[in-house]
Amino acid sequence: MAAPKRVTACLIIIGNEILSGRTEDKNTPYLAKKLNECGIGLREVRVVPDVEEEIVDALNACRARYDYVFTTGGIGPTHDDITSDSVAKAFGVKNVIHPEARAILGEHYGDQDLNEARLRMAHTPEGAELVENPISKAPGYRIENVFVLAGVPLIMQAMFDSLRHRLVGGPPMRSHTIRAELPEGKIAKGLGRIQDAYADVEIGSYPFFRAGIVGCSLVLRGTDEGRLAGAADDVRGLIRELGAEPVDETET
Amino acid sequence: MAAPKRVTACLIIIGNEILSGRTEDKNTPYLAKKLNECGIGLREVRVVPDVEEEIVDALNACRARYDYVFTTGGIGPTHDDITSDSVAKAFGVKNVIHPEARAILGEHYGDQDLNEARLRMAHTPEGAELVENPISKAPGYRIENVFVLAGVPLIMQAMFDSLRHRLVGGPPMRSHTIRAELPEGKIAKGLGRIQDAYADVEIGSYPFFRAGIVGCSLVLRGTDEGRLAGAADDVRGLIRELGAEPVDETET
Repeated sequence: MAAPKRVTACLIIIGNEILSGRTEDKNTPYLAKKLNECGIGLREVRVVPDVEEEIVDALNACRARYDYVFTTGGIGPTHDDITSDSVAKAFGVKNVIHPEARAILGEHYGDQDLNEARLRMAHTPEGAELVENPISKAPGYRIENVFVLAGVPLIMQAMFDSLRHRLVGGPPMRSHTIRAELPEGKIAKGLGRIQDAYADVEIGSYPFFRAGIVGCSLVLRGTDEGRLAGAADDVRGLIRELGAEPVDETET
Repeated sequence: MAAPKRVTACLIIIGNEILSGRTEDKNTPYLAKKLNECGIGLREVRVVPDVEEEIVDALNACRARYDYVFTTGGIGPTHDDITSDSVAKAFGVKNVIHPEARAILGEHYGDQDLNEARLRMAHTPEGAELVENPISKAPGYRIENVFVLAGVPLIMQAMFDSLRHRLVGGPPMRSHTIRAELPEGKIAKGLGRIQDAYADVEIGSYPFFRAGIVGCSLVLRGTDEGRLAGAADDVRGLIRELGAEPVDETET
């Protein structure tokens, strides 16, 4: 039984601050979980520096490949905020003042404080549709299958809430996690057999070492609840066969 | 003045668990900082799923482009550990038992417990050199400019310590961070002028919103201490000109 075609997404994180180690990325796990809820699988993440050519290359590679592309970072008012210029270049369009974005910023800052730097945040590639930013006002936007969002996690999250209704997902991915106090090396063979029997369920094994105990968390993911439950039963049976007690950790 | 040629690196994270949002990546910030200390700039990170074709594609794109490539994840004994098969395929060589790795695992598990699954961890692409794993023994390895490491952060970190002496870096990147309680939109213009005057210093601006205060952290990075100090002085001067007091946050 083949898995149904999944709707896919990619995240491009534009950020020297992640590549320097200064900032820990918080956007990947948030977006991954939210997209899962929408029935969209995050299939790739790329972190690229604030360099136009690299952003353009990553955008063009990923927007051809995935149903949705999200970018985070680089949409503020300073010289290192080059996302919109880069997105426009990737799409071969101009980076222009979006009248609606200009109006939002004019109201927020007052026209006298809407200086040249802040006006950068009113620019979008021609043809873009705005994504509301309820926190700091400067909007994100969508152009074709690419959503351009802020890098600051709270703002990114608020923007995601603003755009979520525009996403069209497939069946949501469900998951079971079962913990076993068994080393991976003992369970690997039987687990491989279960994986072979359930090609439509993705089975991952993640070792842990806690308080002197060697074990593994077995994560089963799939869209068909019945198949997922069947695979989970087999995994529990395998763990018992090997003399341990399966612990159901989480189920989503 | 052009910046000296930097030694570059890329990290490929092989991990469905990161893409599903289950696990937060801890390896990027660690590796980024350690590589910085070695005078190597992390220029890209890719997170790819446990799918051979995707791993092969990412490896071949990145090993041609960067001086060093690091991979994390997928080197355990279970069916989803396909990194070595994928690396071998990317290099067009066989994935074979490495005698030294086999000896290490035989000693660790005892020959009777070195089953087929665990023997997977003794495989490396032909021609690879081992990287010691002082924690759980199953080694990482190097093949040409690619270092293959474990995904579990503690083990990855120990492996990095084992391989660090093999890396040849350039001049180390130093950084100053200066905080200003000024909105980015006010400092952007002057900051852009300073960036223009110091093309060899990378100036990033990161807004913050804390306890009702809107400000930004200005991160200056470069290899020439004199130039870095000059740019930092100009940034402090700019902040004072705009009526705020610069706060030196960190210096490395």
